[in-house]
Amino acid sequence: MPLSRPIALSCGEPAGIGPDLALSLAQQDRDYPLVLLGDRSVLAERADALGLTVQLHAWEDGDTAREAGHLSFLHIPVHSPVRAGHLDPVNAAHVIRLLEIGCDGCLGGRFAALVTAPLHKGVINEAGRSFSGHTEFLAERSGAAQPVMMLACPGLRVALATTHLPLRQVADAISPKGLESVIRVLHADLRRLFAIDNPRILVCGLNPHAGEGGHLGHEEGEIIAPLLERLRREGMQLNGPLPADTLFTPKVLEQGDAVLAMFHDQGLPVLKHKGFGKAVNLTLGLPIIRTSVDHGTALDLAGSGRADAGSLQAAIGLAVELAENQPEIPS
Amino acid sequence: MPLSRPIALSCGEPAGIGPDLALSLAQQDRDYPLVLLGDRSVLAERADALGLTVQLHAWEDGDTAREAGHLSFLHIPVHSPVRAGHLDPVNAAHVIRLLEIGCDGCLGGRFAALVTAPLHKGVINEAGRSFSGHTEFLAERSGAAQPVMMLACPGLRVALATTHLPLRQVADAISPKGLESVIRVLHADLRRLFAIDNPRILVCGLNPHAGEGGHLGHEEGEIIAPLLERLRREGMQLNGPLPADTLFTPKVLEQGDAVLAMFHDQGLPVLKHKGFGKAVNLTLGLPIIRTSVDHGTALDLAGSGRADAGSLQAAIGLAVELAENQPEIPS
Repeated sequence: MPLSRPIALSCGEPAGIGPDLALSLAQQDRDYPLVLLGDRSVLAERADALGLTVQLHAWEDGDTAREAGHLSFLHIPVHSPVRAGHLDPVNAAHVIRLLEIGCDGCLGGRFAALVTAPLHKGVINEAGRSFSGHTEFLAERSGAAQPVMMLACPGLRVALATTHLPLRQVADAISPKGLESVIRVLHADLRRLFAIDNPRILVCGLNPHAGEGGHLGHEEGEIIAPLLERLRREGMQLNGPLPADTLFTPKVLEQGDAVLAMFHDQGLPVLKHKGFGKAVNLTLGLPIIRTSVDHGTALDLAGSGRADAGSLQAAIGLAVELAENQPEIPS
Repeated sequence: MPLSRPIALSCGEPAGIGPDLALSLAQQDRDYPLVLLGDRSVLAERADALGLTVQLHAWEDGDTAREAGHLSFLHIPVHSPVRAGHLDPVNAAHVIRLLEIGCDGCLGGRFAALVTAPLHKGVINEAGRSFSGHTEFLAERSGAAQPVMMLACPGLRVALATTHLPLRQVADAISPKGLESVIRVLHADLRRLFAIDNPRILVCGLNPHAGEGGHLGHEEGEIIAPLLERLRREGMQLNGPLPADTLFTPKVLEQGDAVLAMFHDQGLPVLKHKGFGKAVNLTLGLPIIRTSVDHGTALDLAGSGRADAGSLQAAIGLAVELAENQPEIPS
């Protein structure tokens, strides 16, 4: 059903392309309510730098500014003036505050979903704040035990059993308990978020050729296959462990609603090859809907007008779609 | 220049789809000389089973049968009658003999290239013969120290630094010496086989985000980057180590002639996604030209008429292209 609550867009690192991308949304009419989480002056100055004519409105709940040329914002001030392309650790607290307000607004029912523009981990850590990424931050703040990273593009969804681990640590990180937890989150959120009643999941093996019957590794036989067998008895549709290089071929992909890859570089090269510019990063297992662009802050492009808003548009489009799949909260 | 010597096609496992695929080549005229390495009766019987009208000619050097409806063969007898779909260890020696004759014919200048239809490793090992694959067999027989596996499809070539290793062994298998050897073979064969004067190679990192400056692994900083830097000083065009999930996007790919992936499931899922049905397996570092289909024996399809010859046609097409790039041997 049409959204009554807005999509909240965190503008992310103010010196990066986040404000540029957010402002680019004013170029078209929108059929959903949107609120930018960011600093008023940063947005106004960046619009000037880009030569965009945008009327910025202070957000009020119930706001309906959706015509091209208009955007609503919630003013969350920076702590030091921003120069496009120049990181400043003093503003790390601002970036964190965007996420806190976005997350809390979703938890409290004020926002329908949170979409995040890129931030810069390095400068946040430099500011003395331990920060390993959006996903971990939002999981902790929303009390989620098992966030699962998914990348999606038209025609393909890939979730990861392990994410940002050195390759030599991957095999030991595949445990029956951890993998079960990831599969349960993936299965539940394909139902809850994507409204797929009985989702079909294609599960990669860990090793080449999914271990080739034990000749190329034992994790399939010892961990993955027995777990899938057990979960199938609960009625889950799990196909695997499959060799990754046959799984990602069209005939196999059409038999699944999502792929579970065992590690980052097994699943994401295909996804980004297929969907580059339209790939969306999505966190499953949270009590809120959160999507994100699949790229970084691109400091060298900030204020240049050359940033490509394709991934942000896709991230918002997916957030709207998932939010529309949710039952309306009585107001 | 046009080939004077033939492409030799090993029909591989006689109970699999190799003979089917070989016979399907009779459906069109060919602009290159071709000799099937296989058993005369197997080919004749399979043609009957498939309802194909093919005139089979015993090969003689200088043979020019290239019209549709005609194929030339070198009779290499099976040791036991063949039933499509039924493996028989007694015929393992036949399968090996096809490779020996194919390899030796290329080494001796009788054949221009060897193309291999699939064989079945299991049944060869069952016959008491230690056999780990075409690549290793041909490398040993031709005295090649460093075979390198490459998969190619229209628009993408991916070579592998490591191939059929359990994932947990991959990180330790990336050594400066081994990687240097692979890069030298890849570079030399992009020149020799593909006739690319100064090839540009895109090199993947081992870890997610190519180690993200050491946060996600150290092999990039300790092994890969210093090696690439050293080889660049010799004039090689090596770009990397790059994150695999950005490397395989169109903008980056167009800056390279080939990709070097660090391991099987980092490089092949994209290649097979992009090129399925048209992907060719190619062995670099041999003194002969050898290409292969990218699929297995498909025992259940043998004799059914449902085997797809796309990969074999692509393998032959590439073998012809590479052979035409070679200087003519004076006869």
